[in-house]
Amino acid sequence: MSVVTDTMRNGVDTEKMFATLDLLKAQPELGKFRFRASNRWIDGSHNRSTIKNFYAAGGEDTTRTDEFRIDAGEPAILLGTDTGANPAEFLLHALAACLTTSIVYVASARKVRLTSVESTLVGDMDVRAALGVDHEPRTGFERIGVSFRVTGDAPPAKLREVVERAQKRSAVYDIVTNGVPVDVEVTTD
Amino acid sequence: MSVVTDTMRNGVDTEKMFATLDLLKAQPELGKFRFRASNRWIDGSHNRSTIKNFYAAGGEDTTRTDEFRIDAGEPAILLGTDTGANPAEFLLHALAACLTTSIVYVASARKVRLTSVESTLVGDMDVRAALGVDHEPRTGFERIGVSFRVTGDAPPAKLREVVERAQKRSAVYDIVTNGVPVDVEVTTD
Repeated sequence: MSVVTDTMRNGVDTEKMFATLDLLKAQPELGKFRFRASNRWIDGSHNRSTIKNFYAAGGEDTTRTDEFRIDAGEPAILLGTDTGANPAEFLLHALAACLTTSIVYVASARKVRLTSVESTLVGDMDVRAALGVDHEPRTGFERIGVSFRVTGDAPPAKLREVVERAQKRSAVYDIVTNGVPVDVEVTTD
Repeated sequence: MSVVTDTMRNGVDTEKMFATLDLLKAQPELGKFRFRASNRWIDGSHNRSTIKNFYAAGGEDTTRTDEFRIDAGEPAILLGTDTGANPAEFLLHALAACLTTSIVYVASARKVRLTSVESTLVGDMDVRAALGVDHEPRTGFERIGVSFRVTGDAPPAKLREVVERAQKRSAVYDIVTNGVPVDVEVTTD
């Protein structure tokens, strides 16, 4: 629940936000974070991730009281039974959520009060590569399209600036547009 | 629920799988899929995606009876109230889920019966860039580490081959390692 005070804007405590920024300027080493997810196969395309603690600001963050459990699946046409959204759809969710939170945080810092932020994301994929039928198409999305509708107490040009700045601040947008090195280790016993 | 028959392996109907592959070989245009997510800001770092229909195999797939609703959030140290896993954690979940399902499908096609697939993913990030304190570190993960433990009725070398092939077949692994073009459109009314 958000307490309404002078420092709250868009549900963000801007006093705490600026204090956090000042702290990170003074002690840059506190910016090192490590997020984690553990996943376990259940059956077929059904698997579940658990997410809880993470490393942040010089130590293990154990403030979350409960773990998040997130089930994935596939629809029937991709040989599953809809036990959850599929992994590619979760990637779209991650991107939508990160851009949206970035928009809200940037707007809050710039004293823009938002009334709504809505988005629709589409990802185009040729599933023949993922299914091993043809190696010509790429395996992942060929492109992702994001349509935002943002309203608030600022002129359209300023709202567009907020979205542009949010793209530069969004961790998942950086990951998805630029790629990240992934190391995979395997044990079999 | 999986019905145990000769064609079921690891919860995957291999007869249906091979029929799908044959169909896609005969009619490559059926491989074009479009996945979607719609997201709406709720408050602060709390937003929610809804995921349901998608375009597949020449038409709109409306077989899902219910939509998936997925809430995102941030922990207190990142100015949220833990309304859900955060977007970067959801990206790790998407990657874990996609690699795991790819392992299960590849194993099923190769007649390997799996007993367990477990993984732990870590993503290292300097949050100063996302918070706008410093533009030197990249905004997203610097690297992602994936540790799989895979067991089944095949020798270790064959299980490792399954994981290697699954990396090539995983849509999210391709997206995260290679990046994807993202087009962002904005309306403000």
